[in-house]
Amino acid sequence: MKLAVLASGYGSNLQAIIDATKRGVIDGRVVLVISDQRDAYALKRAEKHQIEARYLNPKNYASREDYDSAVIVLLKERGIDLVVLAGYMRLLSPVFIDAFPGRIMNIHPSLLPSFPGLGGVGQALKYGVKVSGCTVHFVDENLDTGPIILQEAVPVYDDDTEESLHQRIHSVEHRLYPKAIQLFVQGKISIEGRKCIIHER
Amino acid sequence: MKLAVLASGYGSNLQAIIDATKRGVIDGRVVLVISDQRDAYALKRAEKHQIEARYLNPKNYASREDYDSAVIVLLKERGIDLVVLAGYMRLLSPVFIDAFPGRIMNIHPSLLPSFPGLGGVGQALKYGVKVSGCTVHFVDENLDTGPIILQEAVPVYDDDTEESLHQRIHSVEHRLYPKAIQLFVQGKISIEGRKCIIHER
Repeated sequence: MKLAVLASGYGSNLQAIIDATKRGVIDGRVVLVISDQRDAYALKRAEKHQIEARYLNPKNYASREDYDSAVIVLLKERGIDLVVLAGYMRLLSPVFIDAFPGRIMNIHPSLLPSFPGLGGVGQALKYGVKVSGCTVHFVDENLDTGPIILQEAVPVYDDDTEESLHQRIHSVEHRLYPKAIQLFVQGKISIEGRKCIIHER
Repeated sequence: MKLAVLASGYGSNLQAIIDATKRGVIDGRVVLVISDQRDAYALKRAEKHQIEARYLNPKNYASREDYDSAVIVLLKERGIDLVVLAGYMRLLSPVFIDAFPGRIMNIHPSLLPSFPGLGGVGQALKYGVKVSGCTVHFVDENLDTGPIILQEAVPVYDDDTEESLHQRIHSVEHRLYPKAIQLFVQGKISIEGRKCIIHER
């Protein structure tokens, strides 16, 4: 299976995914990394692993749809089976969703539907929850609302800072995201309504 | 410490709290149980343990404030230190909140702020989350929004029914609610803004 990862920043989840493909935790290969940020360290990580790394400048496109269409062309040309968002800071247009139905995943640093959108970790701390976590879900046309594949809880401590909580959540993400991707690769996920059923044999 | 429990139904959390006081898990006594339902089994449970059980019929009061005022009179007469809501199906008016600031607790069968209000368990199942749980919180003037004291996560399985998930959450509730009450009794909870800080020595 061919995976593409879209990332805007540091790419720590991208790294976890690449490592998982090398170790055989994911039976697939990352063949393409796309970023909307020229300086995204995620692009460097791709290059280090001889993975095609592409920067597409949003300023060169008139609309979000135009930009997404250019991304879609690349994804289709490379025969991508699954699109993995890893800290990709752009909302996908319906054009994108329709081009890869049920084949776009995202990870979010909260137990959705709590604290969607930007700054999920900070939102959780501010609210004062005692349990947070992370969520891997399929992407639909709305923000962080798609069918949930996997979730895992993480404790929140009274003396947590945004950084300490983020770190705790990140370390779970780096295990949970590869696991969800492998379930997809193995054909073990079916979507029924807005529920994901996991078929473990 | 004198506790009052307000309940509208079966009272399984009431029972867990009574048991915890008997076993010394809570250093306090339930001295009063109030219900808005004549046939609430919670009232029977109170009587079995020689605890004063009072039914107040909402129809005898012109407004929610009037009803709550009657409840407050009872609570004050008995010198209640902490008001514990256990399946109490009425929203408290500001009159009630102001009479017991920071001294009213509730338990909710979801990881708030996800799935507040009625049918938290059904809402979670319908949404398709993979992790749910329960939340003990102080009550403020809005629905299920007060400062969170304790939360615990519970897994949601693909073949869960509302009943099976509710049962799993309930069994955590019966441990978590007494724990939160005992923290209060021991003076180990302080409220800072909308956060509860737990002072464990």
